[in-house]
Amino acid sequence: MGTVTFDITTSLDGFVAGPDITAEEPLGRGGEELHDWWTRTAFFREMHGESGGEANEDSEVMTEAYANVGAVVMGRGMFGGDGAWGDEPWEGWWGEEPPFRVPVFVVTHHAREPLPREGGTTYHFVTEGVETAIAQAQEAAGERKVFIAGGANVIQQALGAGLVDEFQIHVAPRLLGGGTPLFAGLADLQVETVRVVASPNVAHLKYRVLK
Amino acid sequence: MGTVTFDITTSLDGFVAGPDITAEEPLGRGGEELHDWWTRTAFFREMHGESGGEANEDSEVMTEAYANVGAVVMGRGMFGGDGAWGDEPWEGWWGEEPPFRVPVFVVTHHAREPLPREGGTTYHFVTEGVETAIAQAQEAAGERKVFIAGGANVIQQALGAGLVDEFQIHVAPRLLGGGTPLFAGLADLQVETVRVVASPNVAHLKYRVLK
Repeated sequence: MGTVTFDITTSLDGFVAGPDITAEEPLGRGGEELHDWWTRTAFFREMHGESGGEANEDSEVMTEAYANVGAVVMGRGMFGGDGAWGDEPWEGWWGEEPPFRVPVFVVTHHAREPLPREGGTTYHFVTEGVETAIAQAQEAAGERKVFIAGGANVIQQALGAGLVDEFQIHVAPRLLGGGTPLFAGLADLQVETVRVVASPNVAHLKYRVLK
Repeated sequence: MGTVTFDITTSLDGFVAGPDITAEEPLGRGGEELHDWWTRTAFFREMHGESGGEANEDSEVMTEAYANVGAVVMGRGMFGGDGAWGDEPWEGWWGEEPPFRVPVFVVTHHAREPLPREGGTTYHFVTEGVETAIAQAQEAAGERKVFIAGGANVIQQALGAGLVDEFQIHVAPRLLGGGTPLFAGLADLQVETVRVVASPNVAHLKYRVLK
């Protein structure tokens, strides 16, 4: 089976979202800016059907990260956000043609029929937890990678359950002073360095989990 | 005046010391191992009057970090540790011939005469706080760098008071799950990347503080 991976951006003080998360600021105070380096890349623009952006090292790193991805796993918040579920299920944050273009397994408490979208993305709603979602994603991905898109809670559960093979942390040169720490209660996790590359915008630290 | 800098090793989850600090484990559970990369280097051995060690990228990075240092600032714990002060002042952890070879300004509540050691190190005990210690160190260093040797508390005070110009974080590929976070309450600190280099042992992230 293919490897299970994730990529996530943290502040220099180790937070993936800032303090004071609200509906207007779902990444907390300063959290949105962590991702400036990513939205500026040529690869991000291309993924979202746009042109331009910076064809820099950061763009190359993310092209590599998304290469050969056969399925995506994400939490309910990443799919559609808390409070977004009315009487009628909605279609998530990602529009008519989401950038994933592979099966996406959404960890949720709300059972629901699969939701096919344009361009190759089909959302599958998994009510049995992260472990099951990853197993189903691996089945769908075959030899290709399973990419855990977040949020932090899904990533922490996957790490804690020993389901992650490799991951990459993008350390942005910003401090948030508080918020959601990426790692919590994972003292037993053993890793080794795969490689580190960086641009002035962000440092990309890639690790393999030792099992 | 020369720049004020520090170098410090953190775990991948952002701690400079592990949980459960005791007299036997002053860096907490797992904290000592964070520094394996450093004690293995040829430069560390040379600094401590030994031969051997690895002449690797990590050794080069630390040779650069200590180059042109004109004075050192450290906390009382880094000098001699809590509980080490009896009726007679003692000489600290660093022996007859400490590796600093420049004036060292120790932030402490205990006033005391300067303590000259062999090889160029003289300890000066500063009871007026971190800001005064750094000012005295800058005076002593002239155009050379002031190097804050730690611990975390002294570094955080210096960062919080806007006294640091550049710093380097050595991220070890280990998780501690808790302990002493490097950054605390420093949301207003603005930095830019100077450079990032890495070996399989550790990632060296160097930043400049924007003022």
